[in-house]
Amino acid sequence: MNTSTFKAVILAGGSGERFWPLSTPERPKQFLRVFGGASLIRQAVTRLDGLVSPKDVFVVTAKNLVAATRKELPEIPKCNILGEPMRRDTGAAVALGVGLAASDADPVIGFFSSDQMVANPKAFRKVVSKAVAIARRKQVIVTLGIKPTYPATCFGYISPKTRTFVEKPDAKTAKKYVKAGYLWNAGMFIARASTFRGAFAAHAPELECLTRFETDGTNRTDGTRSRSKAIAGGGLAKLYSALPKISFDYAVMEKSKNVEVVPGDFGWDDVGSFAAFDKYFPHDSRGNVREGPCTVVEADGNICVARSARISLLGVKNLVVVTTPDSVLVADKSRLTEMKRLFSR
Amino acid sequence: MNTSTFKAVILAGGSGERFWPLSTPERPKQFLRVFGGASLIRQAVTRLDGLVSPKDVFVVTAKNLVAATRKELPEIPKCNILGEPMRRDTGAAVALGVGLAASDADPVIGFFSSDQMVANPKAFRKVVSKAVAIARRKQVIVTLGIKPTYPATCFGYISPKTRTFVEKPDAKTAKKYVKAGYLWNAGMFIARASTFRGAFAAHAPELECLTRFETDGTNRTDGTRSRSKAIAGGGLAKLYSALPKISFDYAVMEKSKNVEVVPGDFGWDDVGSFAAFDKYFPHDSRGNVREGPCTVVEADGNICVARSARISLLGVKNLVVVTTPDSVLVADKSRLTEMKRLFSR
Repeated sequence: MNTSTFKAVILAGGSGERFWPLSTPERPKQFLRVFGGASLIRQAVTRLDGLVSPKDVFVVTAKNLVAATRKELPEIPKCNILGEPMRRDTGAAVALGVGLAASDADPVIGFFSSDQMVANPKAFRKVVSKAVAIARRKQVIVTLGIKPTYPATCFGYISPKTRTFVEKPDAKTAKKYVKAGYLWNAGMFIARASTFRGAFAAHAPELECLTRFETDGTNRTDGTRSRSKAIAGGGLAKLYSALPKISFDYAVMEKSKNVEVVPGDFGWDDVGSFAAFDKYFPHDSRGNVREGPCTVVEADGNICVARSARISLLGVKNLVVVTTPDSVLVADKSRLTEMKRLFSR
Repeated sequence: MNTSTFKAVILAGGSGERFWPLSTPERPKQFLRVFGGASLIRQAVTRLDGLVSPKDVFVVTAKNLVAATRKELPEIPKCNILGEPMRRDTGAAVALGVGLAASDADPVIGFFSSDQMVANPKAFRKVVSKAVAIARRKQVIVTLGIKPTYPATCFGYISPKTRTFVEKPDAKTAKKYVKAGYLWNAGMFIARASTFRGAFAAHAPELECLTRFETDGTNRTDGTRSRSKAIAGGGLAKLYSALPKISFDYAVMEKSKNVEVVPGDFGWDDVGSFAAFDKYFPHDSRGNVREGPCTVVEADGNICVARSARISLLGVKNLVVVTTPDSVLVADKSRLTEMKRLFSR
């Protein structure tokens, strides 16, 4: 494969809420190192080795995370890492990513998350290559559909036959989807720059201008230059403030007819909450997962991460207990989906 | 009352386990300040104001706690605060206290705990005065019996009729005791020095030598001087190591015939565990007790003490969560009696 015409955009926003206090608004989930040596964003880039060279990797992140992201990914050109002036969901982020990665050569651009796990990177690269090949020759947006390992209610699904996207289902519907061969929507999209642009123009015209965004005017020569320059010249924040908060799925994919699904089975996980620790760490004889100094007496099924003070558990069950120098979280495992409520007060 | 012939001994040992990590072996329960401004030991001494002058207050504590105790009680002469070389339960501590407080004037000596609560100090002083008066004129050990407020299983009881001591009962027996008018044994004993000495000689002769202990030889002129000097001259540790670990109740009170019970009702509590916080602190609308920065979402009936990092509780019930710079405790309220197990590992 000619890697020069494939570019990768890593979407690296994140509020840092779901793994708080390990993650924070200043160090959201993609910087998490708890799953082994490398941070999730480091793993997300390394995983693409061989498919794309560092100069063709771009990152769309939050303005306040640009410095940390550049530090984490030193091999990527600094100007490839761009901070959005404010959060506007994945619709705007993808559009901006198209603007960032597009060139006159109309490259295939792949969008990937910065905070997901892939157990089998080799299989992942194979699937991505296949998707890139399709996207190069057809005017379609290719999405990777993950083969479900259980009837998850925390992911959207894609029907590979009808190529339709469906939102997160309830438990009963999830079972039906899995039985019907639906795949998990992992939020990975691959298409030519021109295809993305066309899709935005057709379905989300208010976002289309971002696909023509240029940071320094050096890589665009078409008639949009003047507009792009206007955006780059300090207009991005103003423009963003007027944009809708809308996901790429909702803005484009659910409406698009030219969608193709490539199924994948490479041990994907979006690591949505502390509950994922139960999957990735070994348990003691009573089902506790521990990192750091923890004393555990008559306690079962807890996730215990001691990053500062020693944690002592006595007679408690199914808790997530996390200590950092600033904060101590004590949450019932079944309530992790409500983490946000700790911050909205 | 002639206060010059009443002396008070505060028993201030303690392992610091039951309120760990707020209390530690170096700062056990009597130094706890969580119940208001003053530490429990400070309150224990202040409570005796008017009954006894500071020069007649003595403290038997652990060797490693002498400095902290002297700092906490600056008005008490330094030599009145003595550290036991090792823990030998209350039998040895009371005997040593008799040795410390005794003089040729054969004073009445009262033993009090350093880590109990008394809601009504005035009523307490009245009851103690009454007990002192009895102890002065009769050769009896007077014990204060607390009027039970509920059928506790965590205290021993005294039958005021038969003057017999009974150990901590089970729930059923406790109800029977309360119905029969039994009183809580609060571990407060008042008698003349000679009466204590006689009781030790009769029932626990191996401890009797401690009642003749003198620290500097200045306040004793009887024939035991040479022996006392031997003890003071570095022999205490050696002597202690050979002593039995036995409570004063078991060694003396349960065997003694010359016992008198003075009932008291002055809001006594031994503050046995974090569960006491439920009694002494106000609750929020969901029954949580909080000290320090705590964020609480959908959490009920928790005791939350944040002494360093902020605590965030999400969806948890009936826990004790305590943070200090070194340790975080997360315990089920119903398991607090098992706190020791955190240290025996």
